[in-house]
Amino acid sequence: MDYPVLVETLRSALESDSTHLIREQLEDVHPADYAAALTEFVPSDLWKLLTVLPRADQAEVFGYLPAEVQVELAISISRRKLSPIIRQMSSDERADLFNRLTDEQRDSLLPALAHAEREDLLRLTAHEEGTAGAIMTSDYALVPPDLTVLEALEVLRREAPDKETIYSSYVVDKARQLIGVVSLRDLILAPVSMQVDELINHDPIFAHVDMPQEEVAALIAKYDLLALPIINDEHQMVGIVTYDDAMDVVQQEATEDFHKTATIGKLESSVKDASISLLYRKRVFWLVLLVFGNIFSGAGIAYFEETIASYLALLFFLPLLIASSGNAGAQSGTLMVRALATGDIKLRDWGSLLAKECLVAGLLGVTMSVAVVGLGYWRGGYDIALVVAFTMMLVVMVGSLIGLSLPFLLSRFNMDPATASGPLITSIADVAGVLLYFSIATWYLGL
Amino acid sequence: MDYPVLVETLRSALESDSTHLIREQLEDVHPADYAAALTEFVPSDLWKLLTVLPRADQAEVFGYLPAEVQVELAISISRRKLSPIIRQMSSDERADLFNRLTDEQRDSLLPALAHAEREDLLRLTAHEEGTAGAIMTSDYALVPPDLTVLEALEVLRREAPDKETIYSSYVVDKARQLIGVVSLRDLILAPVSMQVDELINHDPIFAHVDMPQEEVAALIAKYDLLALPIINDEHQMVGIVTYDDAMDVVQQEATEDFHKTATIGKLESSVKDASISLLYRKRVFWLVLLVFGNIFSGAGIAYFEETIASYLALLFFLPLLIASSGNAGAQSGTLMVRALATGDIKLRDWGSLLAKECLVAGLLGVTMSVAVVGLGYWRGGYDIALVVAFTMMLVVMVGSLIGLSLPFLLSRFNMDPATASGPLITSIADVAGVLLYFSIATWYLGL
Repeated sequence: MDYPVLVETLRSALESDSTHLIREQLEDVHPADYAAALTEFVPSDLWKLLTVLPRADQAEVFGYLPAEVQVELAISISRRKLSPIIRQMSSDERADLFNRLTDEQRDSLLPALAHAEREDLLRLTAHEEGTAGAIMTSDYALVPPDLTVLEALEVLRREAPDKETIYSSYVVDKARQLIGVVSLRDLILAPVSMQVDELINHDPIFAHVDMPQEEVAALIAKYDLLALPIINDEHQMVGIVTYDDAMDVVQQEATEDFHKTATIGKLESSVKDASISLLYRKRVFWLVLLVFGNIFSGAGIAYFEETIASYLALLFFLPLLIASSGNAGAQSGTLMVRALATGDIKLRDWGSLLAKECLVAGLLGVTMSVAVVGLGYWRGGYDIALVVAFTMMLVVMVGSLIGLSLPFLLSRFNMDPATASGPLITSIADVAGVLLYFSIATWYLGL
Repeated sequence: MDYPVLVETLRSALESDSTHLIREQLEDVHPADYAAALTEFVPSDLWKLLTVLPRADQAEVFGYLPAEVQVELAISISRRKLSPIIRQMSSDERADLFNRLTDEQRDSLLPALAHAEREDLLRLTAHEEGTAGAIMTSDYALVPPDLTVLEALEVLRREAPDKETIYSSYVVDKARQLIGVVSLRDLILAPVSMQVDELINHDPIFAHVDMPQEEVAALIAKYDLLALPIINDEHQMVGIVTYDDAMDVVQQEATEDFHKTATIGKLESSVKDASISLLYRKRVFWLVLLVFGNIFSGAGIAYFEETIASYLALLFFLPLLIASSGNAGAQSGTLMVRALATGDIKLRDWGSLLAKECLVAGLLGVTMSVAVVGLGYWRGGYDIALVVAFTMMLVVMVGSLIGLSLPFLLSRFNMDPATASGPLITSIADVAGVLLYFSIATWYLGL
């Protein structure tokens, strides 16, 4: 069903007071679509449209609602009404919601949960944001190794409704330490009388609760996993991270890096929902900071005022030279930042990449030099043409090497290479460009 | 097993001529890790280490090898030896490999395949790169709707070894048109005597073969799907795209957009493996093109030569003003480019975002203006301070609005908004900055 049609159907159901019919009309609508349509309504109507669904669907649709809307409902709907939904949510989504509430709001909702759920929730919300622990779910399926395949399938059948996935089940020992993993595919393929023991992969890929979420996502992507088991310091299994959460992490980390390379701080909401004050705060810091970087370029120009006064024609080429230096730097910088983020290159690759970059930058420098030499001759004659062409070659090379090296340097000192953003590299390349240009001019023109 | 240990084990097995023992030693090593370790060896050794594995594992490890290595083997190993592996590969990986071979190489390998595989391969490789058709696999499981659950599980058990996934099975009618989808989870949960018919989701999410791959990945991410069925013009089912391929697409598209925003063309290989000539070609185009953009800035400066000659102190602030304009533009441009790519915002949001941006840019402009007014007074006195502060406010606002609007403009004309890169926005903002600065100065200083 199309989105506008869906919203219209819901709206007219509300108006004609026939929301009880929705359940059958919209049986095949995906929970994600239903949730998206719900965001068009005010909380009271939204709540009415949500609660006509079967109980299990309510929790699923609620899980797909944007975080802000979930919080809004958690605050505005009474605990008694909300608690059945909260209890049915998957454990990681519930933990996400609680992380966004104030202490007071949490305290008011916690009594709605059973003791075991409460313990589980407190454990899940204890992990630092951005780690495996913060995105994992504790709704995974365990299977005892001493059963037959038939018995194991029976166990999964009983457990399935509460589990995030039953396509991978895990085997733990008495101390809850992870022993291995069994896929449902293998269970289905095996003779029903076989022991589960024989199907276990004893060397499963796993991650520690403290692993940064981007590394978790990279493991899942590399090994094409449906779910990655997460262990604590004692090698005990404490949760799983599923492929769909990994996909969200990949998107989110890429967005963060995009913003960082344009000197924008981490936004907690989408740019559409972000407030004016949030956008201002996330942008102003680097914008002001870079002003002071550019003062060096200004000072460079001031230092060479005499040269400039004698050859005003030199100024024509200033924007072109410093921009080319900055652009070449942004190119090689971005190549490195992205390749470091995806794991394509490592710190130790710096040397070989530097050697290659020298050649590429040399070629680019010569090309750019050829591209401007005619312009130089036309605007300023033979001498200026030579100065401009030679400077161009040099600044493109210098810009490229700065762009290549800065991300490695930051990485080396455990800072995020994405901070070596376009604007930062451009500012540094600008200073280098100004100094090189006027030094060469002063020297060659004999001033 | 650690990567260096694994490589060492393989190396010593080769040296002591005991590769036949590897099979047991490395039973639990993941195929992805085995493949990664193999890339450390020359083709003949690689081949030796690959073919000691059981047949089914050979194809899986081969599938994890980097594309260049696959092609190298396809060329250097005789068809008779290679064909068993090629036959066992999953259909989408086989199609990828064939897409990278020359016509001659394809013709030499095709006879190695059975008739049905050959037909399938030709169908899969016929789709344009970057579409659903190009990344889908034809190894999906079909289940007839008129069976009981028990019978359906038996069908899946028989089909499983050849299928990419059995966790989602599809139901088609006599004309092979897609009717619905059944999850293995539902089959496992249902009573064995139930009809499959009752478990079918009749309104499955699906995509057309021509859908761009980034939209396919977005659908899979939005609905948390394991696999997305792909249909042709006649609504016939022709394949599925699985979550792991979608994850690769998300990574790859983000990388492409990163590179584009730094004016780097599409790289077919990782930056580590890219040749010098490839890197040069992908970078030189925009670098040269932007030179001509910057000529306008130069011309702007030349036009105001008289103003500059009278007030050389103005030059000190030139880099600072045009860089700030460019940086503000890069910030808002990047915010838009990324939000358009992830679907967070649509073309129709331009109006409301523009209104918000005007306020944010205004605040940023005022802040930046305050940040430089003291500097202006110190370097050039009261008049210059006023000119610089006023210009700063204006250029930050103008830069931001250019950055915001350009991606929408490109999108409107069906061009990729990522082309509205930092360097392009910076160049345009530079020109605006130069003209505004010297116009205001000329006017205010009464020249």
